[in-house]
Amino acid sequence: MHRSSEPESLVELIKALKRLPGIGVRTATRIAYYLLQYDLEGANLLSQALTSAVENLCHCSRCNSLSEKKICTICSDPCRDSSILCIVENPADLNALEDSRSYHGLYYVLMGRLEPLEGIGPYELNFKQVLDRALDGKIREIILATNSTAEGETTAHFLSELLNKYKITVSRLARGIPASSELEYLDTNTIALALIERKQMQD
Amino acid sequence: MHRSSEPESLVELIKALKRLPGIGVRTATRIAYYLLQYDLEGANLLSQALTSAVENLCHCSRCNSLSEKKICTICSDPCRDSSILCIVENPADLNALEDSRSYHGLYYVLMGRLEPLEGIGPYELNFKQVLDRALDGKIREIILATNSTAEGETTAHFLSELLNKYKITVSRLARGIPASSELEYLDTNTIALALIERKQMQD
Repeated sequence: MHRSSEPESLVELIKALKRLPGIGVRTATRIAYYLLQYDLEGANLLSQALTSAVENLCHCSRCNSLSEKKICTICSDPCRDSSILCIVENPADLNALEDSRSYHGLYYVLMGRLEPLEGIGPYELNFKQVLDRALDGKIREIILATNSTAEGETTAHFLSELLNKYKITVSRLARGIPASSELEYLDTNTIALALIERKQMQD
Repeated sequence: MHRSSEPESLVELIKALKRLPGIGVRTATRIAYYLLQYDLEGANLLSQALTSAVENLCHCSRCNSLSEKKICTICSDPCRDSSILCIVENPADLNALEDSRSYHGLYYVLMGRLEPLEGIGPYELNFKQVLDRALDGKIREIILATNSTAEGETTAHFLSELLNKYKITVSRLARGIPASSELEYLDTNTIALALIERKQMQD
């Protein structure tokens, strides 16, 4: 909604904010007025942070995640186990795994997932680079940790087909009942999956 | 939550986004990754829009609203009725009134409201400038259109006390049942107000 009474640079700012994911025109307008009325310093900070992030960040040449250096902190850490590679969709998924503090191998970040309907296929996701990384000679196991969504499962399936030709163990994150959950509140698909993939208890 | 694996400029960007109103750390992280992964152009556009808005926008010297010129489009429009002044809290309120297309007078934007607990008093809101504007000799009526909240009502009351000394009609937006509403779904305060301020119908 463009009002003739609104100055051009305000309209442009609202338009740029509206482009952010999850931000509609009302929120964009509210944020714009807030910044200009109460937080000019915040507006300047955000502007600089955006420019600096766009200028300084590149993709790590080994794991494809966002990094300020050619090889990121994790990939250049000699303490990490370089025989295991965990493939995830996004840097946010990598962070979730890191926060669990139970994985000490390396990562590869796809920066997406197979979405044929959106025109994102193996070529767009650069599966050639994934293969090159996986076949560096050191990797013994690959954990497919793409999300448990239709697209994530498809991506994992495709990658496992691709990798099964080589002498590398390919595994997938276990699926089932999440920790500290109550059956009563779980969705039926999760319960069905947990039944199918049930594990025999040790005697 | 700062992870050692996250590059510095990414952390700074998330911090700057988190400063926006209504944006928590999760949304800020999601927006940052989205921009860097899918919309670098959007990030650059937003950065430029912020800088340009901060540089180009000032307060109109007549109505105090945001403007690119010393006197804004509305204040410099000769077709507007310069004998009525409508006092609102924010530019967003001004827009709401403009959208109703039923007001053709001029505005004064307080850029806030009296909030004694937050340290915002008549001095902070620059009531001297409001008075100067109201007493320009042309204004015959002042419509107090601050919001119908406790703070908005207080502000309106204070301003009416201030303006009643002068020979100017001071009015307040009518309160009551909103258009196209059903009594069943209205809050009790609105109904009580509509009863108290009921109007006799013409014969």
